Amino acid sequence: MYLMRIGERGHERPVARLNDSEYLDLAELGDVDESFFADGMARAAALMQEKIGRRDIRRFDAERIGAPITRPHQIICVGLNFSDHAAESGASVPSEPIIFSKSPNTLIGPNDDVRIPKNSSKTDWEVELGIVIGKRTRYLSSEAEAEAHIAGYVISNDVSEREFQLEREGQWMKGKSAETFNPCGPWLVTADEITDPLALGMWLDVNGDRRQTGSTGTMVFSPHYIVHYLSQFMVLEPGDLINTGTPPGVGLGMTPPTYLRPGDVMTLGIDGLGTQKQHVVSFDREDGVKK
Amino acid sequence: MYLMRIGERGHERPVARLNDSEYLDLAELGDVDESFFADGMARAAALMQEKIGRRDIRRFDAERIGAPITRPHQIICVGLNFSDHAAESGASVPSEPIIFSKSPNTLIGPNDDVRIPKNSSKTDWEVELGIVIGKRTRYLSSEAEAEAHIAGYVISNDVSEREFQLEREGQWMKGKSAETFNPCGPWLVTADEITDPLALGMWLDVNGDRRQTGSTGTMVFSPHYIVHYLSQFMVLEPGDLINTGTPPGVGLGMTPPTYLRPGDVMTLGIDGLGTQKQHVVSFDREDGVKK
Repeated sequence: MYLMRIGERGHERPVARLNDSEYLDLAELGDVDESFFADGMARAAALMQEKIGRRDIRRFDAERIGAPITRPHQIICVGLNFSDHAAESGASVPSEPIIFSKSPNTLIGPNDDVRIPKNSSKTDWEVELGIVIGKRTRYLSSEAEAEAHIAGYVISNDVSEREFQLEREGQWMKGKSAETFNPCGPWLVTADEITDPLALGMWLDVNGDRRQTGSTGTMVFSPHYIVHYLSQFMVLEPGDLINTGTPPGVGLGMTPPTYLRPGDVMTLGIDGLGTQKQHVVSFDREDGVKK
Repeated sequence: MYLMRIGERGHERPVARLNDSEYLDLAELGDVDESFFADGMARAAALMQEKIGRRDIRRFDAERIGAPITRPHQIICVGLNFSDHAAESGASVPSEPIIFSKSPNTLIGPNDDVRIPKNSSKTDWEVELGIVIGKRTRYLSSEAEAEAHIAGYVISNDVSEREFQLEREGQWMKGKSAETFNPCGPWLVTADEITDPLALGMWLDVNGDRRQTGSTGTMVFSPHYIVHYLSQFMVLEPGDLINTGTPPGVGLGMTPPTYLRPGDVMTLGIDGLGTQKQHVVSFDREDGVKK
Protein backbone atom coordinates (compact mmCIF):
# COMPACT_ATOMS: atom_id res chain seq x y z
CA MET A 1 0.00 0.00 0.00
CA TYR A 2 1.11 3.54 -0.79
CA LEU A 3 -0.54 5.74 1.82
CA MET A 4 -0.58 9.51 1.31
CA ARG A 5 -2.21 12.52 2.88
CA ILE A 6 -3.34 15.31 0.55
CA GLY A 7 -4.96 18.67 1.12
CA GLU A 8 -4.08 21.97 2.68
CA ARG A 9 -1.86 22.02 5.76
CA GLY A 10 -3.92 20.99 8.80
CA HIS A 11 -6.72 19.68 6.58
CA GLU A 12 -5.09 16.70 4.89
CA ARG A 13 -7.02 13.48 4.29
CA PRO A 14 -5.59 10.00 3.75
CA VAL A 15 -5.64 8.47 0.28
CA ALA A 16 -4.16 5.32 -1.25
CA ARG A 17 -2.01 5.97 -4.32
CA LEU A 18 -2.65 3.53 -7.19
CA ASN A 19 -0.22 5.09 -9.67
CA ASP A 20 1.09 8.52 -10.67
CA SER A 21 -2.36 9.73 -11.71
CA GLU A 22 -4.92 7.77 -9.68
CA TYR A 23 -5.85 7.29 -6.05
CA LEU A 24 -8.57 6.00 -3.75
CA ASP A 25 -9.92 8.48 -1.20
CA LEU A 26 -9.72 7.14 2.38
CA ALA A 27 -11.03 10.23 4.17
CA GLU A 28 -13.59 8.14 6.08
CA LEU A 29 -10.75 6.45 8.00
CA GLY A 30 -9.86 9.66 9.81
CA ASP A 31 -6.36 11.07 10.03
CA VAL A 32 -3.15 9.03 10.17
CA ASP A 33 -2.37 9.61 13.82
CA GLU A 34 -1.31 7.35 16.66
CA SER A 35 -4.78 5.77 16.99
CA PHE A 36 -4.97 5.12 13.22
CA PHE A 37 -2.42 2.34 13.45
CA ALA A 38 -4.53 0.16 15.75
CA ASP A 39 -6.56 -1.10 12.79
CA GLY A 40 -6.26 1.64 10.19
CA MET A 41 -4.02 -0.29 7.81
CA ALA A 42 -6.44 -3.24 7.77
CA ARG A 43 -9.42 -0.91 7.34
CA ALA A 44 -7.58 0.92 4.55
CA ALA A 45 -6.94 -2.37 2.72
CA ALA A 46 -10.61 -3.36 3.01
CA LEU A 47 -11.79 0.06 1.87
CA MET A 48 -9.40 -0.07 -1.08
CA GLN A 49 -10.90 -3.36 -2.24
CA GLU A 50 -14.40 -1.99 -1.89
CA LYS A 51 -13.63 1.23 -3.81
CA ILE A 52 -11.79 -0.61 -6.56
CA GLY A 53 -14.82 -2.93 -6.81
CA ARG A 54 -17.12 -0.04 -7.51
CA ARG A 55 -14.55 1.87 -9.59
CA ASP A 56 -14.55 4.80 -7.14
CA ILE A 57 -11.15 5.94 -8.37
CA ARG A 58 -10.05 9.59 -8.36
CA ARG A 59 -7.41 11.44 -10.33
CA PHE A 60 -4.70 13.56 -8.71
CA ASP A 61 -4.98 17.26 -9.43
CA ALA A 62 -2.69 19.96 -8.10
CA GLU A 63 -3.62 19.38 -4.43
CA ARG A 64 -0.81 19.79 -1.95
CA ILE A 65 0.79 16.61 -0.61
CA GLY A 66 1.25 16.49 3.16
CA ALA A 67 3.51 14.26 5.21
CA PRO A 68 1.94 10.77 5.11
CA ILE A 69 1.54 10.79 8.91
CA THR A 70 0.30 13.58 11.16
CA ARG A 71 2.51 14.97 13.87
CA PRO A 72 4.02 11.91 15.56
CA HIS A 73 4.55 11.34 19.27
CA GLN A 74 8.28 11.60 18.61
CA ILE A 75 10.87 11.78 15.84
CA ILE A 76 14.04 9.84 16.64
CA CYS A 77 17.16 10.12 14.49
CA VAL A 78 20.15 7.81 14.27
CA GLY A 79 23.47 9.61 13.87
CA LEU A 80 26.43 8.60 11.72
CA ASN A 81 24.73 5.39 10.54
CA PHE A 82 26.56 5.24 7.18
CA SER A 83 30.26 4.48 7.50
CA ASP A 84 31.19 6.78 4.59
CA HIS A 85 29.13 9.67 6.03
CA ALA A 86 30.84 9.21 9.39
CA ALA A 87 34.17 9.52 7.59
CA GLU A 88 33.23 12.75 5.78
CA SER A 89 32.07 14.19 9.12
CA GLY A 90 35.41 13.41 10.68
CA ALA A 91 33.81 10.93 13.08
CA SER A 92 34.43 7.25 13.68
CA VAL A 93 31.73 4.65 13.09
CA PRO A 94 29.79 4.29 16.32
CA SER A 95 29.84 0.96 18.14
CA GLU A 96 26.11 1.23 18.80
CA PRO A 97 23.47 3.64 17.49
CA ILE A 98 23.81 7.32 18.39
CA ILE A 99 20.31 8.63 18.91
CA PHE A 100 18.82 12.09 19.21
CA SER A 101 15.47 13.68 18.56
CA LYS A 102 13.87 16.26 16.31
CA SER A 103 10.91 18.30 17.51
CA PRO A 104 7.79 16.62 16.08
CA ASN A 105 6.42 19.92 14.75
CA THR A 106 9.25 20.00 12.20
CA LEU A 107 7.24 17.59 10.03
CA ILE A 108 6.07 19.06 6.71
CA GLY A 109 5.00 17.74 3.32
CA PRO A 110 7.58 16.49 0.81
CA ASN A 111 7.33 19.57 -1.42
CA ASP A 112 6.73 22.29 1.18
CA ASP A 113 9.25 25.11 1.52
CA VAL A 114 12.18 24.68 3.93
CA ARG A 115 12.98 27.76 6.00
CA ILE A 116 16.53 28.80 6.85
CA PRO A 117 16.42 29.54 10.61
CA LYS A 118 17.08 33.01 11.97
CA ASN A 119 20.83 33.58 12.49
CA SER A 120 21.70 30.46 10.53
CA SER A 121 24.60 30.24 8.11
CA LYS A 122 25.03 26.44 8.04
CA THR A 123 21.74 24.83 7.06
CA ASP A 124 22.43 21.44 5.50
CA TRP A 125 20.58 18.55 3.81
CA GLU A 126 20.34 14.81 4.65
CA VAL A 127 18.32 12.33 2.61
CA GLU A 128 17.26 9.49 4.93
CA LEU A 129 15.14 6.38 5.05
CA GLY A 130 12.43 6.92 7.65
CA ILE A 131 10.77 4.07 9.56
CA VAL A 132 7.16 4.56 10.69
CA ILE A 133 6.27 2.48 13.73
CA GLY A 134 3.00 0.53 13.46
CA LYS A 135 2.42 -0.58 17.04
CA ARG A 136 3.55 0.06 20.56
CA THR A 137 7.12 -1.25 20.90
CA ARG A 138 8.73 -2.08 24.24
CA TYR A 139 11.68 -4.36 25.06
CA LEU A 140 11.66 -6.44 21.87
CA SER A 141 13.53 -9.69 22.49
CA SER A 142 15.03 -9.95 19.01
CA GLU A 143 15.65 -8.07 15.76
CA ALA A 144 13.21 -10.45 14.04
CA GLU A 145 10.42 -9.19 16.26
CA ALA A 146 10.94 -5.67 14.90
CA GLU A 147 9.43 -6.52 11.52
CA ALA A 148 5.87 -6.72 12.88
CA HIS A 149 6.30 -3.30 14.55
CA ILE A 150 7.15 -1.41 11.35
CA ALA A 151 4.17 0.06 9.47
CA GLY A 152 6.33 1.10 6.54
CA TYR A 153 8.97 3.41 5.16
CA VAL A 154 9.15 7.03 4.02
CA ILE A 155 11.70 9.50 2.69
CA SER A 156 12.84 12.06 5.29
CA ASN A 157 15.02 15.07 4.64
CA ASP A 158 16.70 15.44 8.04
CA VAL A 159 17.49 19.14 7.57
CA SER A 160 20.23 20.22 10.00
CA GLU A 161 21.85 23.46 11.13
CA ARG A 162 25.49 22.52 11.70
CA GLU A 163 26.49 25.49 13.86
CA PHE A 164 23.51 24.94 16.16
CA GLN A 165 24.20 21.18 16.17
CA LEU A 166 27.97 21.12 16.61
CA GLU A 167 29.40 24.51 17.60
CA ARG A 168 27.05 25.58 20.38
CA GLU A 169 26.87 23.81 23.73
CA GLY A 170 25.19 20.38 23.11
CA GLN A 171 23.12 18.42 22.24
CA TRP A 172 22.49 17.72 18.55
CA MET A 173 18.73 18.24 18.76
CA LYS A 174 19.47 21.96 18.96
CA GLY A 175 20.45 21.90 15.29
CA LYS A 176 17.75 19.50 14.14
CA SER A 177 14.52 21.03 15.40
CA ALA A 178 13.86 24.29 13.55
CA GLU A 179 10.46 24.67 11.85
CA THR A 180 10.16 22.89 8.46
CA PHE A 181 13.25 20.77 9.18
CA ASN A 182 11.61 17.40 8.39
CA PRO A 183 10.07 17.14 4.93
CA CYS A 184 8.47 13.67 4.82
CA GLY A 185 6.81 11.55 2.14
CA PRO A 186 5.27 11.62 -0.42
CA TRP A 187 4.20 8.09 0.51
CA LEU A 188 4.21 5.76 3.47
CA VAL A 189 5.11 2.53 1.68
CA THR A 190 4.18 -0.59 3.60
CA ALA A 191 6.98 -3.10 4.15
CA ASP A 192 5.33 -5.71 1.90
CA GLU A 193 5.92 -3.43 -1.12
CA ILE A 194 9.68 -3.34 -0.49
CA THR A 195 11.66 -6.42 -1.38
CA ASP A 196 14.78 -5.44 0.55
CA PRO A 197 14.97 -2.27 2.67
CA LEU A 198 18.75 -2.77 2.69
CA ALA A 199 19.15 -2.35 -1.07
CA LEU A 200 17.53 1.01 -1.80
CA GLY A 201 19.39 3.65 -3.78
CA MET A 202 19.28 7.18 -2.29
CA TRP A 203 20.13 10.53 -3.86
CA LEU A 204 19.85 14.25 -3.24
CA ASP A 205 20.47 17.20 -5.60
CA VAL A 206 20.86 20.91 -4.79
CA ASN A 207 19.94 23.13 -7.72
CA GLY A 208 20.22 20.12 -9.99
CA ASP A 209 23.76 19.18 -8.89
CA ARG A 210 24.07 15.73 -7.38
CA ARG A 211 25.26 16.03 -3.76
CA GLN A 212 24.36 12.72 -2.11
CA THR A 213 24.48 9.28 -3.67
CA GLY A 214 24.21 6.18 -1.55
CA SER A 215 22.37 3.03 -0.72
CA THR A 216 20.74 1.68 2.40
CA GLY A 217 23.08 -1.25 1.77
CA THR A 218 25.90 0.66 3.48
CA MET A 219 24.00 1.31 6.70
CA VAL A 220 25.91 0.38 9.85
CA PHE A 221 22.73 -0.60 11.74
CA SER A 222 19.70 -1.95 9.85
CA PRO A 223 16.12 -0.75 10.38
CA HIS A 224 15.24 -3.95 12.26
CA TYR A 225 18.32 -3.58 14.45
CA ILE A 226 17.48 0.06 15.19
CA VAL A 227 13.88 -0.67 16.22
CA HIS A 228 14.98 -3.54 18.46
CA TYR A 229 17.74 -1.37 19.93
CA LEU A 230 15.54 1.66 20.62
CA SER A 231 12.95 -0.52 22.36
CA GLN A 232 15.53 -1.25 25.10
CA PHE A 233 15.69 2.46 26.02
CA MET A 234 12.21 3.84 25.40
CA VAL A 235 8.71 2.84 24.37
CA LEU A 236 7.96 3.61 20.72
CA GLU A 237 4.37 4.58 19.92
CA PRO A 238 2.42 3.91 16.72
CA GLY A 239 3.21 6.62 14.20
CA ASP A 240 6.66 7.41 15.68
CA LEU A 241 9.12 8.34 12.93
CA ILE A 242 12.71 7.10 13.01
CA ASN A 243 15.19 8.70 10.60
CA THR A 244 17.91 6.12 10.05
CA GLY A 245 20.87 8.25 9.02
CA THR A 246 22.27 9.75 5.85
CA PRO A 247 24.77 8.61 3.20
CA PRO A 248 27.78 10.76 2.19
CA GLY A 249 27.50 14.09 0.43
CA VAL A 250 26.19 16.57 2.98
CA GLY A 251 27.27 20.21 2.81
CA LEU A 252 29.36 19.85 5.98
CA GLY A 253 31.55 17.31 4.19
CA MET A 254 32.27 19.44 1.09
CA THR A 255 35.54 21.31 0.51
CA PRO A 256 34.89 24.03 1.43
CA PRO A 257 31.68 23.29 3.38
CA THR A 258 28.69 24.54 1.41
CA TYR A 259 25.29 25.32 2.85
CA LEU A 260 21.77 26.18 1.75
CA ARG A 261 20.66 29.72 0.86
CA PRO A 262 17.24 31.15 0.07
CA GLY A 263 16.42 30.39 -3.53
CA ASP A 264 18.08 26.96 -3.53
CA VAL A 265 16.06 23.91 -4.52
CA MET A 266 16.55 20.45 -3.02
CA THR A 267 15.33 17.37 -4.88
CA LEU A 268 15.78 13.93 -3.38
CA GLY A 269 14.56 10.39 -3.65
CA ILE A 270 14.86 6.80 -2.48
CA ASP A 271 14.11 3.80 -4.73
CA GLY A 272 10.45 2.85 -4.45
CA LEU A 273 9.61 5.64 -2.00
CA GLY A 274 9.08 8.51 -4.45
CA THR A 275 10.76 11.89 -4.66
CA GLN A 276 10.68 15.25 -2.84
CA LYS A 277 11.34 18.82 -3.98
CA GLN A 278 11.76 21.74 -1.57
CA HIS A 279 12.35 25.41 -2.23
CA VAL A 280 14.58 27.02 0.38
CA VAL A 281 13.29 30.30 1.83
CA SER A 282 14.17 32.69 4.62
CA PHE A 283 12.74 32.22 8.14
CA ASP A 284 10.88 35.51 7.86
CA ARG A 285 8.96 34.64 4.75
CA GLU A 286 5.35 35.13 5.74
CA ASP A 287 4.24 31.64 4.80
CA GLY A 288 7.05 29.17 4.39
CA VAL A 289 4.65 26.32 3.87
CA LYS A 290 3.12 25.77 0.48
CA LYS A 291 -0.66 25.63 0.69
CA MET B 1 -4.77 28.71 39.87
CA TYR B 2 -3.71 25.22 40.89
CA LEU B 3 -4.69 22.97 37.99
CA MET B 4 -4.69 19.19 38.51
CA ARG B 5 -5.84 16.12 36.64
CA ILE B 6 -7.33 13.30 38.70
CA GLY B 7 -8.69 9.88 37.83
CA GLU B 8 -7.37 6.60 36.48
CA ARG B 9 -4.57 6.66 33.94
CA GLY B 10 -5.95 7.64 30.54
CA HIS B 11 -9.21 8.82 32.12
CA GLU B 12 -8.09 11.85 34.11
CA ARG B 13 -10.22 14.99 34.26
CA PRO B 14 -9.07 18.53 35.07
CA VAL B 15 -9.89 20.04 38.46
CA ALA B 16 -8.89 23.23 40.25
CA ARG B 17 -7.41 22.68 43.68
CA LEU B 18 -8.71 25.06 46.35
CA ASN B 19 -6.82 23.60 49.30
CA ASP B 20 -5.63 20.22 50.56
CA SER B 21 -9.17 18.87 50.86
CA GLU B 22 -11.32 20.74 48.34
CA TYR B 23 -11.49 21.19 44.59
CA LEU B 24 -13.71 22.39 41.76
CA ASP B 25 -14.40 19.87 39.01
CA LEU B 26 -13.49 21.22 35.54
CA ALA B 27 -14.29 18.08 33.53
CA GLU B 28 -16.46 20.07 31.10
CA LEU B 29 -13.34 21.89 29.84
CA GLY B 30 -11.98 18.72 28.25
CA ASP B 31 -8.46 17.44 28.78
CA VAL B 32 -5.36 19.59 29.31
CA ASP B 33 -3.82 19.06 25.90
CA GLU B 34 -2.27 21.39 23.33
CA SER B 35 -5.65 22.83 22.28
CA PHE B 36 -6.65 23.47 25.91
CA PHE B 37 -4.21 26.33 26.22
CA ALA B 38 -5.87 28.44 23.51
CA ASP B 39 -8.53 29.59 25.97
CA GLY B 40 -8.66 26.86 28.60
CA MET B 41 -7.06 28.88 31.38
CA ALA B 42 -9.54 31.74 30.90
CA ARG B 43 -12.46 29.29 30.69
CA ALA B 44 -11.17 27.53 33.82
CA ALA B 45 -11.05 30.82 35.72
CA ALA B 46 -14.62 31.68 34.67
CA LEU B 47 -15.89 28.21 35.55
CA MET B 48 -14.18 28.43 38.95
CA GLN B 49 -16.01 31.67 39.75
CA GLU B 50 -19.30 30.15 38.66
CA LYS B 51 -18.83 26.97 40.72
CA ILE B 52 -17.68 28.87 43.79
CA GLY B 53 -20.78 31.07 43.39
CA ARG B 54 -23.09 28.10 43.60
CA ARG B 55 -20.93 26.29 46.16
CA ASP B 56 -20.31 23.36 43.81
CA ILE B 57 -17.20 22.33 45.74
CA ARG B 58 -15.99 18.74 45.98
CA ARG B 59 -13.75 16.97 48.45
CA PHE B 60 -10.68 14.96 47.47
CA ASP B 61 -10.98 11.24 48.15
CA ALA B 62 -8.35 8.63 47.32
CA GLU B 63 -8.50 9.19 43.56
CA ARG B 64 -5.23 8.89 41.69
CA ILE B 65 -3.49 12.14 40.70
CA GLY B 66 -2.27 12.28 37.13
CA ALA B 67 0.27 14.61 35.57
CA PRO B 68 -1.40 18.05 35.32
CA ILE B 69 -0.98 18.02 31.53
CA THR B 70 -1.64 15.18 29.08
CA ARG B 71 1.14 13.91 26.90
CA PRO B 72 2.87 17.02 25.56
CA HIS B 73 4.14 17.62 22.03
CA GLN B 74 7.66 17.49 23.46
CA ILE B 75 9.62 17.40 26.71
CA ILE B 76 12.82 19.45 26.58
CA CYS B 77 15.42 19.28 29.35
CA VAL B 78 18.21 21.70 30.19
CA GLY B 79 21.43 20.01 31.29
CA LEU B 80 23.84 21.15 34.00
CA ASN B 81 21.83 24.27 34.77
CA PHE B 82 22.88 24.50 38.44
CA SER B 83 26.53 25.39 38.93
CA ASP B 84 26.92 23.11 41.98
CA HIS B 85 25.31 20.15 40.15
CA ALA B 86 27.68 20.69 37.21
CA ALA B 87 30.56 20.51 39.68
CA GLU B 88 29.38 17.24 41.26
CA SER B 89 29.00 15.76 37.75
CA GLY B 90 32.61 16.66 36.92
CA ALA B 91 31.43 19.08 34.24
CA SER B 92 31.99 22.78 33.76
CA VAL B 93 29.18 25.29 33.75
CA PRO B 94 27.92 25.59 30.16
CA SER B 95 28.24 28.93 28.38
CA GLU B 96 24.74 28.52 26.95
CA PRO B 97 21.99 26.00 27.71
CA ILE B 98 22.64 22.35 26.92
CA ILE B 99 19.37 20.90 25.68
CA PHE B 100 18.11 17.39 25.10
CA SER B 101 14.76 15.68 25.01
CA LYS B 102 12.81 13.03 26.90
CA SER B 103 10.24 10.88 25.11
CA PRO B 104 6.82 12.44 25.86
CA ASN B 105 5.33 9.09 26.88
CA THR B 106 7.57 9.11 29.96
CA LEU B 107 5.08 11.44 31.65
CA ILE B 108 3.26 9.91 34.67
CA GLY B 109 1.47 11.16 37.75
CA PRO B 110 3.43 12.51 40.73
CA ASN B 111 2.83 9.42 42.88
CA ASP B 112 2.89 6.68 40.23
CA ASP B 113 5.52 3.96 40.44
CA VAL B 114 8.87 4.51 38.68
CA ARG B 115 10.19 1.48 36.85
CA ILE B 116 13.89 0.56 36.76
CA PRO B 117 14.58 -0.18 33.06
CA LYS B 118 15.64 -3.62 31.88
CA ASN B 119 19.43 -4.05 32.17
CA SER B 120 19.77 -0.89 34.26
CA SER B 121 22.08 -0.57 37.22
CA LYS B 122 22.35 3.23 37.36
CA THR B 123 18.87 4.72 37.63
CA ASP B 124 19.09 8.13 39.29
CA TRP B 125 16.84 10.94 40.53
CA GLU B 126 16.63 14.66 39.64
CA VAL B 127 14.14 17.08 41.21
CA GLU B 128 13.48 19.88 38.71
CA LEU B 129 11.32 22.92 38.15
CA GLY B 130 9.23 22.29 35.03
CA ILE B 131 7.92 25.07 32.80
CA VAL B 132 4.65 24.46 30.96
CA ILE B 133 4.34 26.51 27.77
CA GLY B 134 1.03 28.34 27.35
CA LYS B 135 1.14 29.42 23.73
CA ARG B 136 3.03 28.85 20.50
CA THR B 137 6.54 30.29 20.93
CA ARG B 138 8.79 31.19 17.98
CA TYR B 139 11.75 33.60 17.81
CA LEU B 140 11.00 35.65 20.90
CA SER B 141 12.81 38.96 20.67
CA SER B 142 13.54 39.28 24.40
CA GLU B 143 13.54 37.43 27.72
CA ALA B 144 10.73 39.70 28.87
CA GLU B 145 8.49 38.34 26.12
CA ALA B 146 8.84 34.84 27.58
CA GLU B 147 6.63 35.62 30.56
CA ALA B 148 3.44 35.69 28.47
CA HIS B 149 4.33 32.31 26.96
CA ILE B 150 4.56 30.42 30.26
CA ALA B 151 1.30 28.83 31.48
CA GLY B 152 2.84 27.87 34.79
CA TYR B 153 5.21 25.65 36.72
CA VAL B 154 5.28 22.03 37.89
CA ILE B 155 7.58 19.66 39.74
CA SER B 156 9.33 17.16 37.45
CA ASN B 157 11.44 14.23 38.56
CA ASP B 158 13.80 13.93 35.58
CA VAL B 159 14.62 10.26 36.22
CA SER B 160 17.84 9.28 34.43
CA GLU B 161 19.79 6.11 33.66
CA ARG B 162 23.43 7.18 33.86
CA GLU B 163 24.96 4.25 31.98
CA PHE B 164 22.51 4.71 29.11
CA GLN B 165 23.06 8.49 29.22
CA LEU B 166 26.83 8.70 29.58
CA GLU B 167 28.55 5.37 28.92
CA ARG B 168 26.87 4.21 25.71
CA GLU B 169 27.34 6.00 22.40
CA GLY B 170 25.43 9.36 22.66
CA GLN B 171 23.16 11.22 23.04
CA TRP B 172 21.76 11.88 26.51
CA MET B 173 18.14 11.24 25.53
CA LYS B 174 19.05 7.53 25.51
CA GLY B 175 19.23 7.62 29.30
CA LYS B 176 16.27 9.93 29.84
CA SER B 177 13.42 8.29 27.94
CA ALA B 178 12.52 4.99 29.64
CA GLU B 179 8.86 4.48 30.57
CA THR B 180 7.78 6.23 33.82
CA PHE B 181 10.88 8.48 33.75
CA ASN B 182 8.99 11.78 34.17
CA PRO B 183 6.73 11.98 37.24
CA CYS B 184 5.02 15.37 36.99
CA GLY B 185 2.75 17.38 39.26
CA PRO B 186 0.73 17.28 41.45
CA TRP B 187 -0.22 20.79 40.31
CA LEU B 188 0.29 23.13 37.40
CA VAL B 189 0.68 26.38 39.31
CA THR B 190 0.06 29.48 37.23
CA ALA B 191 2.81 32.08 37.26
CA ASP B 192 0.64 34.63 39.11
CA GLU B 193 0.67 32.36 42.20
CA ILE B 194 4.47 32.40 42.37
CA THR B 195 6.12 35.55 43.63
CA ASP B 196 9.59 34.70 42.41
CA PRO B 197 10.35 31.55 40.40
CA LEU B 198 14.03 32.19 41.16
CA ALA B 199 13.63 31.77 44.91
CA LEU B 200 12.03 28.34 45.31
CA GLY B 201 13.52 25.76 47.65
CA MET B 202 13.86 22.25 46.18
CA TRP B 203 14.48 18.91 47.90
CA LEU B 204 14.48 15.17 47.26
CA ASP B 205 14.69 12.26 49.70
CA VAL B 206 15.37 8.58 49.01
CA ASN B 207 13.96 6.31 51.70
CA GLY B 208 13.66 9.32 53.98
CA ASP B 209 17.29 10.39 53.64
CA ARG B 210 17.79 13.85 52.21
CA ARG B 211 19.71 13.62 48.92
CA GLN B 212 19.07 16.89 47.11
CA THR B 213 18.74 20.33 48.62
CA GLY B 214 18.80 23.43 46.50
CA SER B 215 17.05 26.50 45.26
CA THR B 216 16.06 27.79 41.87
CA GLY B 217 18.12 30.81 42.98
CA THR B 218 21.31 29.01 41.90
CA MET B 219 20.15 28.32 38.35
CA VAL B 220 22.65 29.34 35.67
CA PHE B 221 19.89 30.19 33.16
CA SER B 222 16.49 31.42 34.37
CA PRO B 223 13.15 30.09 33.09
CA HIS B 224 12.56 33.25 31.06
CA TYR B 225 16.05 33.03 29.57
CA ILE B 226 15.51 29.36 28.69
CA VAL B 227 12.18 29.95 26.92
CA HIS B 228 13.62 32.86 24.95
CA TYR B 229 16.70 30.81 24.10
CA LEU B 230 14.80 27.69 22.97
CA SER B 231 12.57 29.79 20.73
CA GLN B 232 15.62 30.62 18.58
CA PHE B 233 16.12 26.94 17.73
CA MET B 234 12.64 25.42 17.61
CA VAL B 235 8.97 26.29 17.88
CA LEU B 236 7.50 25.48 21.31
CA GLU B 237 3.87 24.37 21.34
CA PRO B 238 1.25 24.96 24.05
CA GLY B 239 1.61 22.25 26.69
CA ASP B 240 5.29 21.61 25.97
CA LEU B 241 7.17 20.75 29.17
CA ILE B 242 10.66 22.12 29.85
CA ASN B 243 12.63 20.61 32.72
CA THR B 244 15.07 23.29 33.83
CA GLY B 245 17.84 21.26 35.47
CA THR B 246 18.59 19.79 38.86
CA PRO B 247 20.43 21.03 41.97
CA PRO B 248 23.25 19.00 43.59
CA GLY B 249 22.72 15.65 45.28
CA VAL B 250 22.06 13.14 42.52
CA GLY B 251 23.21 9.52 42.92
CA LEU B 252 25.90 9.97 40.26
CA GLY B 253 27.57 12.57 42.47
CA MET B 254 27.69 10.47 45.66
CA THR B 255 30.84 8.73 46.90
CA PRO B 256 30.51 5.98 45.88
CA PRO B 257 27.75 6.61 43.31
CA THR B 258 24.47 5.24 44.60
CA TYR B 259 21.48 4.35 42.47
CA LEU B 260 17.86 3.35 42.84
CA ARG B 261 16.70 -0.20 43.49
CA PRO B 262 13.24 -1.78 43.53
CA GLY B 263 11.66 -1.08 46.90
CA ASP B 264 13.15 2.41 47.23
CA VAL B 265 10.86 5.38 47.77
CA MET B 266 11.52 8.88 46.37
CA THR B 267 9.84 11.91 47.93
CA LEU B 268 10.46 15.36 46.53
CA GLY B 269 9.09 18.86 46.54
CA ILE B 270 9.48 22.45 45.44
CA ASP B 271 8.18 25.42 47.46
CA GLY B 272 4.62 26.23 46.43
CA LEU B 273 4.42 23.43 43.87
CA GLY B 274 3.49 20.53 46.16
CA THR B 275 5.21 17.19 46.73
CA GLN B 276 5.63 13.86 44.96
CA LYS B 277 6.18 10.31 46.22
CA GLN B 278 7.20 7.42 43.96
CA HIS B 279 7.77 3.77 44.75
CA VAL B 280 10.56 2.25 42.66
CA VAL B 281 9.72 -1.07 41.01
CA SER B 282 11.25 -3.42 38.46
CA PHE B 283 10.58 -3.00 34.71
CA ASP B 284 8.81 -6.36 34.61
CA ARG B 285 6.27 -5.57 37.25
CA GLU B 286 2.96 -6.18 35.54
CA ASP B 287 1.56 -2.75 36.23
CA GLY B 288 4.15 -0.18 37.17
CA VAL B 289 1.58 2.57 37.19
CA LYS B 290 -0.65 3.08 40.16
CA LYS B 291 -4.31 3.09 39.17
